[in-house]
Amino acid sequence: MTQKIAILPGDGIGPEITAQAVRLLDKLIAQGLDAEYEYAPLGGAAYDQYGSPYPEATQTLCRAADAVLLGAVGGPQYDTLPRPVRPERGLLAIRKDLNLFANLRPAVLFPELADASTLKPEVVAGLDILIVRELTGDIYFGEPRGIRTLDNGEREGFNTMRYRESEIRRIAKVSFEAAQRRNKKLCSVDKANVLETTELWKEIFTEVSKDYPDVELSHMYVDNAAMQLVRAPKQFDVIATGNIFGDILSDQASMLTGSIGMLPSASLDENGKGLYEPSHGSAPDIAGQNKANPLATVLSLAMLLRYSLKDEARAAQVENAVQKVLQQGFRTADIAEAGAKVLSCSQMGDALLDAL
Amino acid sequence: MTQKIAILPGDGIGPEITAQAVRLLDKLIAQGLDAEYEYAPLGGAAYDQYGSPYPEATQTLCRAADAVLLGAVGGPQYDTLPRPVRPERGLLAIRKDLNLFANLRPAVLFPELADASTLKPEVVAGLDILIVRELTGDIYFGEPRGIRTLDNGEREGFNTMRYRESEIRRIAKVSFEAAQRRNKKLCSVDKANVLETTELWKEIFTEVSKDYPDVELSHMYVDNAAMQLVRAPKQFDVIATGNIFGDILSDQASMLTGSIGMLPSASLDENGKGLYEPSHGSAPDIAGQNKANPLATVLSLAMLLRYSLKDEARAAQVENAVQKVLQQGFRTADIAEAGAKVLSCSQMGDALLDAL
Ligand SMILES: CC(C)[C@H](C(=O)O)[C@@H](O)C(=O)O
Ligand SMILES: CC(C)[C@H](C(=O)O)[C@@H](O)C(=O)O
Repeated sequence: MTQKIAILPGDGIGPEITAQAVRLLDKLIAQGLDAEYEYAPLGGAAYDQYGSPYPEATQTLCRAADAVLLGAVGGPQYDTLPRPVRPERGLLAIRKDLNLFANLRPAVLFPELADASTLKPEVVAGLDILIVRELTGDIYFGEPRGIRTLDNGEREGFNTMRYRESEIRRIAKVSFEAAQRRNKKLCSVDKANVLETTELWKEIFTEVSKDYPDVELSHMYVDNAAMQLVRAPKQFDVIATGNIFGDILSDQASMLTGSIGMLPSASLDENGKGLYEPSHGSAPDIAGQNKANPLATVLSLAMLLRYSLKDEARAAQVENAVQKVLQQGFRTADIAEAGAKVLSCSQMGDALLDAL
Repeated sequence: MTQKIAILPGDGIGPEITAQAVRLLDKLIAQGLDAEYEYAPLGGAAYDQYGSPYPEATQTLCRAADAVLLGAVGGPQYDTLPRPVRPERGLLAIRKDLNLFANLRPAVLFPELADASTLKPEVVAGLDILIVRELTGDIYFGEPRGIRTLDNGEREGFNTMRYRESEIRRIAKVSFEAAQRRNKKLCSVDKANVLETTELWKEIFTEVSKDYPDVELSHMYVDNAAMQLVRAPKQFDVIATGNIFGDILSDQASMLTGSIGMLPSASLDENGKGLYEPSHGSAPDIAGQNKANPLATVLSLAMLLRYSLKDEARAAQVENAVQKVLQQGFRTADIAEAGAKVLSCSQMGDALLDAL
């Protein structure tokens, strides 16, 4: 059966970077990959066209697809829009709609780019962490929420952090399975000394760990995790945490590498369907200038091939192409050391096609 | 009027490190500081003695005091206690009871200890950030909270993030005033793109900023703040944020210096009364060995003199003593570079007394 991929270029540099990934995808299809793809807008681009950041056309396409490749969403021209139609609402909506509860975010230091890190080489050399972030629960979606007026006339903002056992159990399973494929160490991050929600989180992780005796489970408070990621990040293999703590820690962890332009991500449902996107944002300041780094998007395509299309061989082929262009010394501006060969976004696409 | 100081040694290394600060305090009193002090237990020590981590005796003393100096609380022997009597509950209870809503946590790199940072020297040299964390609201104290059983039989954990205008306004004022005394840059950290509570936070900070035209206010999402603290921490002067984000970011920021054993903190109420404690924990692994670093506690005493006793001269005197011992090359084990003169906790106290 021909696999269906939805391509959502999004906003800012999104169209440029997804274009390079699509060139590789075209070549893989020409070489025999049984897949087809179709475009739809998300975020600001979707608002411009349909008045909604996650319009029905996009919804229909993505629901029917086996996998989704996203560029990035957001831009200053949308900052003054009413909240419910802002670009990031499209992102939150598609995550929830497709039930993409498992966000996998690798933080990997590429040896060729070791200098880009602000951390000392000995602290980050060989860094390879996987953050598993729960993506459809927690305070992101918890009700009740809002801003209300109190009896004394002042306003109060409120949000609800919420996790039920089944939600925790399924993300725990994904986390343990990921650890099994790696170095078999899983650190579950919580704030169980203060928050009951994460007390339950900790309990369920401990319970699920009995099914994975080969994985070593540890627990860490979120404040300590933020410290340890600075002090000794290589102590971690897989880190699993809730939506809001994962938002913070995964961004912190990516930045340890100094080259967030290189980092892909996957957001998966229970059946291996997923949305794949670079960890970086839409970079409106350089949009349309053909300067952006397409490598995180291309590595997101590799994750798509691996997790949703179950095509490990082609996933590795794409990753090898990225490794090759780095070894050849090709760089986009964001990752260029002094004296490097700086390529444009599309030139990097050319180099990748050659390398594939 | 003689000022009253409550001394809460706490658990783990708490008694050793507060002892050194008290030696300095004795000397300052001998030199004419009009203050007296009294001891009370908090945390595990209080549980051992009274069955409560914040017993009435401690409450009475602290309520009557002008300032409180705390060592640290917590230890593995208390981990199996019922939750309501665990040591950290004592800390949360005293913060709430004394209305200590403004937590000031400096992250300062001491030039003598620059090597201790895991970040490259050029990234952290001269680092001097102040984190202002709201300490008596947010999801730490928000109701409703707990773990309940749903109709389908599974359990759900829930907590409530909550901030009202008046709570935000008073921490905003403290933040702007702190920025006025420093480099006049304030970055308010929120997650206003997702959480209504922090949308209100952002709005109130913007409103309060009109009263402080000399301070430049910026806003940043918490995930981006965690990245920027790694990428370019020196861009910050004062960072203000809520209780839970502040818990995470202030620990991350302290660790940037590599020497959390050097960092004090103050938690203030509306009238300048405060609780002062080192940013580090109770370090049960080295407790009782006379190896701990008392400098963060001594610098907390300096903050106590400055903020609660309004004795800027003696605050500076204590800070100068710390600077002098560092310049003399004296180090405790946690901050010792190769070849340094390693002192015990009490020897460091001796050196400080000499330097005072
Ligand atoms: C844009 C925002 C809503 C989103 C999030 O907080 O989840 C982003 O920060 C991310 O991590 O993908
Ligand atoms: C011990 C814990 C309850 C406390 C907190 O989360 O506030 C600690 O981490 C701190 O930052 O003082």
